[in-house]
Amino acid sequence: MPKLFIPGPIDVSKETFAAMSQPMIGHRGSEFEALYASLQPGLKELAGTTRPVFLSTSSAWGVMEASLRNLGGKKVLNLCNGAFSDKWFDVSKKIGLDADKIQVEWGQTIDPEAVRAKLSEGGFDLVTLIHNETSTGVMADLEGIAKVVKSFPGVLLIVDSVSSFSAVPIEMDKLGIDVLLAGVQKALALPPGLTVFAVSEDAMARAKETPNRGYYFDFLEFAKNAEANNTPSTPAISLLFGLQQIMENIAAEGVSNRFARHASNNAMIHAWGEKHGFKNFAPEGNQSVSLTCFATPESLDLSAFIKTLKTKHGFVINGGYGKIKGTTFRISNMGNETTETMQELIDAMDDVLG
Amino acid sequence: MPKLFIPGPIDVSKETFAAMSQPMIGHRGSEFEALYASLQPGLKELAGTTRPVFLSTSSAWGVMEASLRNLGGKKVLNLCNGAFSDKWFDVSKKIGLDADKIQVEWGQTIDPEAVRAKLSEGGFDLVTLIHNETSTGVMADLEGIAKVVKSFPGVLLIVDSVSSFSAVPIEMDKLGIDVLLAGVQKALALPPGLTVFAVSEDAMARAKETPNRGYYFDFLEFAKNAEANNTPSTPAISLLFGLQQIMENIAAEGVSNRFARHASNNAMIHAWGEKHGFKNFAPEGNQSVSLTCFATPESLDLSAFIKTLKTKHGFVINGGYGKIKGTTFRISNMGNETTETMQELIDAMDDVLG
Repeated sequence: MPKLFIPGPIDVSKETFAAMSQPMIGHRGSEFEALYASLQPGLKELAGTTRPVFLSTSSAWGVMEASLRNLGGKKVLNLCNGAFSDKWFDVSKKIGLDADKIQVEWGQTIDPEAVRAKLSEGGFDLVTLIHNETSTGVMADLEGIAKVVKSFPGVLLIVDSVSSFSAVPIEMDKLGIDVLLAGVQKALALPPGLTVFAVSEDAMARAKETPNRGYYFDFLEFAKNAEANNTPSTPAISLLFGLQQIMENIAAEGVSNRFARHASNNAMIHAWGEKHGFKNFAPEGNQSVSLTCFATPESLDLSAFIKTLKTKHGFVINGGYGKIKGTTFRISNMGNETTETMQELIDAMDDVLG
Repeated sequence: MPKLFIPGPIDVSKETFAAMSQPMIGHRGSEFEALYASLQPGLKELAGTTRPVFLSTSSAWGVMEASLRNLGGKKVLNLCNGAFSDKWFDVSKKIGLDADKIQVEWGQTIDPEAVRAKLSEGGFDLVTLIHNETSTGVMADLEGIAKVVKSFPGVLLIVDSVSSFSAVPIEMDKLGIDVLLAGVQKALALPPGLTVFAVSEDAMARAKETPNRGYYFDFLEFAKNAEANNTPSTPAISLLFGLQQIMENIAAEGVSNRFARHASNNAMIHAWGEKHGFKNFAPEGNQSVSLTCFATPESLDLSAFIKTLKTKHGFVINGGYGKIKGTTFRISNMGNETTETMQELIDAMDDVLG
């Protein structure tokens, strides 16, 4: 089976699969509680929070929608600059919220001052932001946007880190992020099916006042069960075993070393692109460090490049997402990759380019 | 690690874990579509339907709530006789539906004629039923209740098979079940994190008319994506690989042989209980064939029995759920168990009983 360098799901290590293959345990007993508790310190460190980190048996969209349902107030502002952030606006309307958006071109980033101008119109009490727009390789100015949002009292900020979680520092508490969420099939290098998220005290207070939160994604149910190191519904136990192995790995490597490794692996791909004259689709200063999105040059037969890379070398990269499919291509460096494995990919890509 | 004979999660085989350890594939490509398509014939056979079987990355509660949200009409009738069916009534109210219930004692079964009387009061357009109340070991009179519900035009029937799916025949189309769902950590013997479900044409038509279905659990999104052998959101790929292995196993064994094996394994536990004078908590004629729930006799020190069985023999059975914890205990025979493995458990239990 070819190895994935697409921006999620990514390659899962043998050690993670071995951890996931541990015999089942009941989820209403002390063994499960110990498993749950063991995950908390590392997840809190990665999220930059002292709040409990909840474990949702769902992909990220479940928690993205849940955040709207739990905190849905008067009016939500969706910050849109790619496939996933654009869709969050659609989902806001789908669940019946009053929603407005700032829309910029895919590949561009949202200016914090544009957020200030929009929020100044008044009436908003919720903002959604994708930290790492995996469709375009753009990393948002999280600090700048959070600072603006926090200057409007009563406006809560929901952030889907997507492919940045565990690849770059995120300071949830310091920045005043109200919901921070991440699917585990991105930089955490697990198979999909689990989303980790944390909720600020302000957001929990808002949730308490929000009717029709439902059951499966009710933040209050997550909080109540978290006190007993448990989940409201039957959790994806194998993925939690896998996450435990990943968190042990991260602790052994050291969080700052992990961040540095992602940065240097990412720099290798940037240098490779530069050598070939490939233009980064994301603007300087707002480029993701866990994946790279290149504009496809006219001289490149992208389909043939991707196909030969897979059939000849067993590596899979991605040929662009949604409306920029074909005109861009994406290479992930997140998860367990090393200088050596990135070099293998680069050598293979160079071989195919000839 | 001890082997689980609790009614879910249950023991997962080495072969299933090996299948789950296959390298990741992208979920928007032909390999994933082939995986998805390969699951359909077997799942349809188990559900007794020609409708597509959807794959939800969630535990069963997600789809139980989703069924209410997608079909929620004027008034729902919840049939309550155990922990999970009782909770379905609470969840109905939690999401703002007008809900009424038939409540009988835990361990009892719901009389189809009681359903007829209640529905005759008028105003209902939705009924929820737990087929196999895993908290009490009671199997509902699915055929009798479905027949009654179907005699009321415009009333839709939602059935959570729970621990009966793949252990007994279920005829969704023939009985006119409108939503049939099952978590995979019961008789399918996978780790938790995935729920399979099918939706009738009538229920899909109702969903189309229902506002605020949301996104993550929107039946229309599932139907649209199913046409392309895909899921609305990133699916739990490893669990789908595992399910593929299970479905191949089921095809090799033969569905009717699988049903017969569950019946005979269950009979072994019944006979064992009879030998010791243990009373079945479920009434004759409505006893589950995938698990057995016994009333704890006064002469039995249940905690000591369970503890010694685990420490001395490495087998885990369950000491009762919710308000019948301690006064009942439960033994699962679902999944991959054989005459030999059930006999090992029985010998161990006899050894502990002395």
